[in-house]
Amino acid sequence: MIDQVLLIVIAICIIALGLAAILTRNLLSQDEGTPKMREVSDAIRVGAEAFIKRQYSTIAVLTIVFAVVIFAVYYFTGQGDLALATAAAFIVGAACSAIAGVVAMWIAVRTNIRTAAAAQTSDGKALDFSFRGGAISGLIITSMSLLGVSLTYIALGADPMHTPFVVIGFAFGASFVALFAQLGGGIYTKAADVGADLVGKVEAGIPEDDVRNPATIADLVGDNVGDCAGRGADLFESTAAENIGAMILGVALFPIFGVNGILFPIVMCSLGLLASMIGILSVKGKDGADPMDAMNRGYYITAIISAVFLAGGVYWLLAPGTANWIYFVLAGFVGIALSVAFLRVTLYYTDHHYRPVMEIADASETGAATNIITGFSVGLETTAIPAVLIGISLLLSYWCGTMTGIPNGGLYGTAVATIGMLMVCAYVLTMDTFGPIADNAGGIVEMSQAPDEVRNRMDKLDAAGNTTKALTKGYAIGSASLAVFLLFNAYMADIAKLTGKAFDVVNLASVDVFVGALLGAMLVFLFASLAIRAVSKTAQSVIDAVRIQFKNPAIMAGTQKPDYAAVIDITTQGALRNMVVPGLLVIAFPVVIGITMKYEALAGFLMVATITGILLALILNNSGGAWDNAKKFIETGAHGGKGSEAHKAAVIGDTLGDPFKDTAGPSLHVLIKLLATLTLVLAPIFI
Amino acid sequence: MIDQVLLIVIAICIIALGLAAILTRNLLSQDEGTPKMREVSDAIRVGAEAFIKRQYSTIAVLTIVFAVVIFAVYYFTGQGDLALATAAAFIVGAACSAIAGVVAMWIAVRTNIRTAAAAQTSDGKALDFSFRGGAISGLIITSMSLLGVSLTYIALGADPMHTPFVVIGFAFGASFVALFAQLGGGIYTKAADVGADLVGKVEAGIPEDDVRNPATIADLVGDNVGDCAGRGADLFESTAAENIGAMILGVALFPIFGVNGILFPIVMCSLGLLASMIGILSVKGKDGADPMDAMNRGYYITAIISAVFLAGGVYWLLAPGTANWIYFVLAGFVGIALSVAFLRVTLYYTDHHYRPVMEIADASETGAATNIITGFSVGLETTAIPAVLIGISLLLSYWCGTMTGIPNGGLYGTAVATIGMLMVCAYVLTMDTFGPIADNAGGIVEMSQAPDEVRNRMDKLDAAGNTTKALTKGYAIGSASLAVFLLFNAYMADIAKLTGKAFDVVNLASVDVFVGALLGAMLVFLFASLAIRAVSKTAQSVIDAVRIQFKNPAIMAGTQKPDYAAVIDITTQGALRNMVVPGLLVIAFPVVIGITMKYEALAGFLMVATITGILLALILNNSGGAWDNAKKFIETGAHGGKGSEAHKAAVIGDTLGDPFKDTAGPSLHVLIKLLATLTLVLAPIFI
Repeated sequence: MIDQVLLIVIAICIIALGLAAILTRNLLSQDEGTPKMREVSDAIRVGAEAFIKRQYSTIAVLTIVFAVVIFAVYYFTGQGDLALATAAAFIVGAACSAIAGVVAMWIAVRTNIRTAAAAQTSDGKALDFSFRGGAISGLIITSMSLLGVSLTYIALGADPMHTPFVVIGFAFGASFVALFAQLGGGIYTKAADVGADLVGKVEAGIPEDDVRNPATIADLVGDNVGDCAGRGADLFESTAAENIGAMILGVALFPIFGVNGILFPIVMCSLGLLASMIGILSVKGKDGADPMDAMNRGYYITAIISAVFLAGGVYWLLAPGTANWIYFVLAGFVGIALSVAFLRVTLYYTDHHYRPVMEIADASETGAATNIITGFSVGLETTAIPAVLIGISLLLSYWCGTMTGIPNGGLYGTAVATIGMLMVCAYVLTMDTFGPIADNAGGIVEMSQAPDEVRNRMDKLDAAGNTTKALTKGYAIGSASLAVFLLFNAYMADIAKLTGKAFDVVNLASVDVFVGALLGAMLVFLFASLAIRAVSKTAQSVIDAVRIQFKNPAIMAGTQKPDYAAVIDITTQGALRNMVVPGLLVIAFPVVIGITMKYEALAGFLMVATITGILLALILNNSGGAWDNAKKFIETGAHGGKGSEAHKAAVIGDTLGDPFKDTAGPSLHVLIKLLATLTLVLAPIFI
Repeated sequence: MIDQVLLIVIAICIIALGLAAILTRNLLSQDEGTPKMREVSDAIRVGAEAFIKRQYSTIAVLTIVFAVVIFAVYYFTGQGDLALATAAAFIVGAACSAIAGVVAMWIAVRTNIRTAAAAQTSDGKALDFSFRGGAISGLIITSMSLLGVSLTYIALGADPMHTPFVVIGFAFGASFVALFAQLGGGIYTKAADVGADLVGKVEAGIPEDDVRNPATIADLVGDNVGDCAGRGADLFESTAAENIGAMILGVALFPIFGVNGILFPIVMCSLGLLASMIGILSVKGKDGADPMDAMNRGYYITAIISAVFLAGGVYWLLAPGTANWIYFVLAGFVGIALSVAFLRVTLYYTDHHYRPVMEIADASETGAATNIITGFSVGLETTAIPAVLIGISLLLSYWCGTMTGIPNGGLYGTAVATIGMLMVCAYVLTMDTFGPIADNAGGIVEMSQAPDEVRNRMDKLDAAGNTTKALTKGYAIGSASLAVFLLFNAYMADIAKLTGKAFDVVNLASVDVFVGALLGAMLVFLFASLAIRAVSKTAQSVIDAVRIQFKNPAIMAGTQKPDYAAVIDITTQGALRNMVVPGLLVIAFPVVIGITMKYEALAGFLMVATITGILLALILNNSGGAWDNAKKFIETGAHGGKGSEAHKAAVIGDTLGDPFKDTAGPSLHVLIKLLATLTLVLAPIFI
């Protein structure tokens, strides 16, 4: 039976990889545009590949060190039999996560030029190319995550009662790499962006993506390493961690559902992958149409098919265990509904058609201070509806689970909801990677001085990319917030297994849990501080490097090519140097808390860090998105348009929002899950 | 015995009030300066008194409505015997809090002119006057709080086992008024400040406090209604809420300490008041000296005498109950030490001699965006050390309490630490009120176009005032963070009393408590959003009103006096309109949570809201303070000085910081305690 169910997962993953291969072959056979375009694109590709190579070398060293730590933890706490398996799972997870990031970037830097070339003749074709480029990443990353979990599970013996607790090493490896990938990439992309803007647009008064600015190529490289590689690693570890967390909950229900309850999460996600493939293939660009229409339609198709698959999957795998299985279907629908609701709310807060962005644009008329005050107030406000939605979803899916009448059914209800939300992951990842590809293609068109009509086509696609990037951040945080509750319970189940005593109370009224909770919330703020600071420090180096080149009159006159590689090199060094300390801090701090204050205080730490992390990520992502779109709205001619005082104010707000939405915010998504998998894997030293 | 102990409290309060009366008489007999000064001062006084009158009328209506609600809650939950007493205690607390605010402001608007007059000849005398003006407020507010609690306790029957649970109505009344006073005053002061700066300094290019700017008087009024009246009400309710919370913990220890354990908090605070009087009298201004030296010396004197009194008080009241009473002394020392440590940390983060402010000033050279990114990053960072300090203090004082060997001793240890911190309250309040008085005196000197030497004397005092304001915010948040833990436990004791069942577990791992916690954290962010938004909305009205007046060339030429009263009126209306919704929201929201999700989820809500509130208040207060001082540092000539690009950038950062540090941040202090007293008073409907 195990093999049959897992074979389905493996089969779907192979189909998805096959589809990705076909899409890749088609894409690579497309036209690569003018020589000028190729020149820009080559520079981006070389820069991105150089960064990724150096970044992953650093991460590889950290991974090996940590693998040794994990081995030692298990070995010296009398669990020598698990030491090698857990450390190996960790390394495999880390390696898969790294490959996921590299693949996402490899595709992106090859798709951007083809999208730019297509934009010479057709915006529908440009959408098709960039969207399919995104789809390749989405399919590969999701199937690698599912395959990785499945194969690790089989390799570790497929013992339903014990193996899931070891497979968590895989998830931790994935989170570990994702943290550094997202943080390093996020610092790179925003340091280059902020640096390029400040020294180019503000100081020298030349337009964005101007060929004379030596930081522009670094900026375009940043889109790939931050948005593609970073988000790829982020969602890879999300699916891994959340699936394994749900599998651990399934262990408690083994008497009822057998191994089906444990494998349910990955089977459902593979069915979701199938639904996403259908959704992806339904997207077809049309000249002159709003690209968001086609992508939204694809999303709804994916969501509806996922819902049908979910109902079928529950009937197939869980109905034999409970007569009231229909309530699990409802719980799954709650998850799917939450994913749609989160996209709508994010759209409301970051799109210029609605009140928040309009208010920020209005406030720009009285200067940068009011622009920022208003934007920050909007950011804080964006916590309200999402928190209520998460709360309702948790309570509702828990209630559904309870109604099935099985013991621990409530918790499993939240797990089913999480899985419902995760089913659309491959499609969301597609939309997400589409964003930076379109952004890059726009940059290539701009820098190769293509005709205006080509630029206009790309601007439309670029704007859609900004929207999808904001939406997928909303999705990432929404799915994380449902998932963490089951990850907490997985942690508690793990501790109970280790101590042989029930552990189902985390008493916030006891002084050590309260202090743990306080320190957990603090860590989130401190981490955000370090991430933002890293951007401003690295941006400062970029500014200094560009200023030196601007002193050369030949570069400003456009007669000499600026030294792009020098700036890329400085940004790379800065990003790598500045990612290590915050990354190690968030790993070391909970370990210290756990060792000194023990597992219950650490649970308080973990839970309140998670709550604060979710809310702060919402604040940072949405305020950043709103500032960005307020600026874009003004650039369409509102409030005086480009060059007006309002525009200058809006540019300052946008610059502040950059590290918020693309460095600190997304890194917090990863942090939340890293804390959960970290505590799970290192549980033996906290008791 | 009751009477004897309480008589000491009452006697010390009467002495303090007597000292305040003497200081007031001396102060009022001083010279009121030039006619020009009096003209400015009169305008400030009239504006402040008009605002306070209208503000308290609104608050009075809200108070009466809520008193009826409280009566109904008790009446319809079968506790008719407590209904009238609790509602009455609420009204008395509200009235006392209002009086405290009015007194603080009454003194301040009379001291400012005398300080300005003294500055004509001596900076030592100017310090003496402004500091004593602050002392009058500090002494009156603290003694009113202690008298109010004592007399309410006696009036309600002085039954040690039951009365403390009713006296909490007093604390809730105080918090209720303080919330609106601080919020309304905070909106007023910063809307006027931001409005005046944006339209005066930025748009019209005229200096701060220029007589031609119709918003300057409103700005000076704001210092009084926000900083004096608001902070006065804030610290009044702090001492009330924290004393009563500690008294409730004392109830559990009645078998050990008798009534001494219950009255211990107010007796200690009255001894602290005595210590503060000695500290206050030790401060003597010296011409040419740094005013901070004299004030710091006074603070250390107060802290040392408090420590001695604390040891004596513990021996006297608690030693008969436990042989290990010395551990309670140590717990109290932890509290006193924490108050000193918080002042040092705040100083580090907001003073230009240290790394954080210097970094912000450096970052101003590359523009407003980097100034704000750096400042925000500093703000986030400032949560780290305070959170660790609070954590250590809680654990240490709890441990001390445990070492006394009495049951529940740990909790009482945290109560003693809180009381230790509260003992210096009157002195801190003195330093706090000194700030806006010095600020106002500076404004009067500026607007009456006094000679440069007088301005220079006032600038020095004004700078010291900025420091003391930042320090006392640090103290307020530090004491709140220790106190809330005992307030939670008071809430749990209250629930246990009402249900007749033990209530000592708040299980964060249960889904409803977790959702409660999530919503609690969210409420804090939402409230901050509304507070900041209220400032920007009100500031917009101020800007519009000033622009109309600036169109009059006679005003700009200085030949016609601008219509100050019109701007004061608009600011008043805006502040009152915008304070009601956020205020009612934070009251209604927990009530809804408590009614629908019951007391345990509400406890999770309360605790995590508190954690988030403490940290967010630190972020907002300290980033605001750091931006302010970075600007001031640049104005001393660093980074190009006044008028440079760096200065312009720093002004934008400072403007953003205004609503952070003077509206949202201080309102969060009150919110934290309001939530605690609210849940205590309304406990009957949450079961």
